[in-house]
Amino acid sequence: MTRFKAPNPDFEAETRASFDRQGAMRHLGAKLGVVEPGHVTIELPYREELSQQHGFFHGGITATIADSAGGYAAFTLFPPGAAILTVEFKINLVAPADGELLVASGRVKKPGRTLTLCELEVSVVKGGKVKPCAYGMQTLMCLEPRGDLPAG
Amino acid sequence: MTRFKAPNPDFEAETRASFDRQGAMRHLGAKLGVVEPGHVTIELPYREELSQQHGFFHGGITATIADSAGGYAAFTLFPPGAAILTVEFKINLVAPADGELLVASGRVKKPGRTLTLCELEVSVVKGGKVKPCAYGMQTLMCLEPRGDLPAG
Amino acid sequence: MTRFKAPNPDFEAETRASFDRQGAMRHLGAKLGVVEPGHVTIELPYREELSQQHGFFHGGITATIADSAGGYAAFTLFPPGAAILTVEFKINLVAPADGELLVASGRVKKPGRTLTLCELEVSVVKGGKVKPCAYGMQTLMCLEPRGDLPAG
Amino acid sequence: MTRFKAPNPDFEAETRASFDRQGAMRHLGAKLGVVEPGHVTIELPYREELSQQHGFFHGGITATIADSAGGYAAFTLFPPGAAILTVEFKINLVAPADGELLVASGRVKKPGRTLTLCELEVSVVKGGKVKPCAYGMQTLMCLEPRGDLPAG
Repeated sequence: MTRFKAPNPDFEAETRASFDRQGAMRHLGAKLGVVEPGHVTIELPYREELSQQHGFFHGGITATIADSAGGYAAFTLFPPGAAILTVEFKINLVAPADGELLVASGRVKKPGRTLTLCELEVSVVKGGKVKPCAYGMQTLMCLEPRGDLPAG
Repeated sequence: MTRFKAPNPDFEAETRASFDRQGAMRHLGAKLGVVEPGHVTIELPYREELSQQHGFFHGGITATIADSAGGYAAFTLFPPGAAILTVEFKINLVAPADGELLVASGRVKKPGRTLTLCELEVSVVKGGKVKPCAYGMQTLMCLEPRGDLPAG
Repeated sequence: MTRFKAPNPDFEAETRASFDRQGAMRHLGAKLGVVEPGHVTIELPYREELSQQHGFFHGGITATIADSAGGYAAFTLFPPGAAILTVEFKINLVAPADGELLVASGRVKKPGRTLTLCELEVSVVKGGKVKPCAYGMQTLMCLEPRGDLPAG
Repeated sequence: MTRFKAPNPDFEAETRASFDRQGAMRHLGAKLGVVEPGHVTIELPYREELSQQHGFFHGGITATIADSAGGYAAFTLFPPGAAILTVEFKINLVAPADGELLVASGRVKKPGRTLTLCELEVSVVKGGKVKPCAYGMQTLMCLEPRGDLPAG
């Protein structure tokens, strides 16, 4: 597991503050878990409001928490005041997201001044058993501090 | 624009019924628009509950309605009773989803017995002006009718 | 079909000169076709040297000419002296590339100062019949003119 | 590192035989390295014939050996006589492929009866130093033994 050093001493507080501004995370019921340099996890308990037509977690919802996990993983390595943008992501849904909890993990694979690459993994927990249900890759962009966007 | 013929005469009713079973679409406030053979649109009005940290639509939410639009576009060309599965999708977020409405469009690019490829496009409407904010590609799988899964 | 205006009056000559420096294109036997603002095609006649295990064009070779076509499509819209970099691409191989000629087409979908998105399409020609065999999306980066890299 | 068991006792010989039928690998000068259940590597020494416009390995060539490495990694876990098809792949080119040797590694991330997901990594070796230059994901399909396609 690659180890990174965060250039921003307040990376954890700023990550948590930015996450709290995401109305979508609150609306889904997602909670931030681990916030380490280059690694962030998000947990999402099951509710019928998150389902697709067969009652499992919707693939887009799986993608949504994976996108936020990867975005914040990259953000932990940004300089103070920078903003983050998802350029693109790709996700493979390898098993039905059938369970009581989703855990998304984003890890920085290759940091960069402008672009950062993250790998995404989402597992579903059912009856205490953890099973990967999605894998992804995500490209993120660092926007230097500027007047019109708050950090995050 | 390629024209397809739906093998299932009830494709529209079955698509709408399956969409109505997606708790996630209801929770987000998304509505099904066009349902034609190989083409489906979904509309999603803005709410603070769908936002990322800067107040725009969250990229994962954009991806979620794109995933459903593409999935149902493929589903319109499936035989009666078949179920649908997203294998993977990739999405580029090319502009901030800043506006009062998102419109996702899924179109079948290449239908197949087992795998179908769709292209995805999401536009954001702001003050009546329509602007593309995301483009994607999606691979879907057709599961033949079987006992343990309802159609859809 | 979106129409673009090239900011570089010498875009065609510079595109052709850059293509001619790609040893890989020469080694494969690929030829540059259309070079218009935001649109480039590449043709590749079949040779056994380009095959996969069943004798068709190798999927990686298909991807290689698609990558160059999209890269040069983006390059046609760059300012003079800029260099181009493929950030990432994704390709779906939707039919066997079985035929005597491959034609790859790259089109700019969304130009940008830093990042450009292209869509890729590759068709195979067999007995005069043209059939799409691959679709893709590609993200490219514009590197401003600098001392250590020639244009292209 | 996940360990897999190959259902085909002749997986290594059949993988090597199939690789030898790929005219493209021979034309590029690529050699098969490790062939283990769920893991295959391919090496490709630098030649000017593999270059892009700045003299580095062409991104498409990088993708080509990654595609073959992942395809054969999946193939090692297929039943005897099955054929393999790349459904799609996505690759991020994270550093210039500037060096004397490329090494592509394909690893099965999630095997399946019909679809298999692989992760791809390509490193470039320069003056003895190894540096990752590309990461990817790839979806493969297993075609059951049938008359019109040889195994591989």
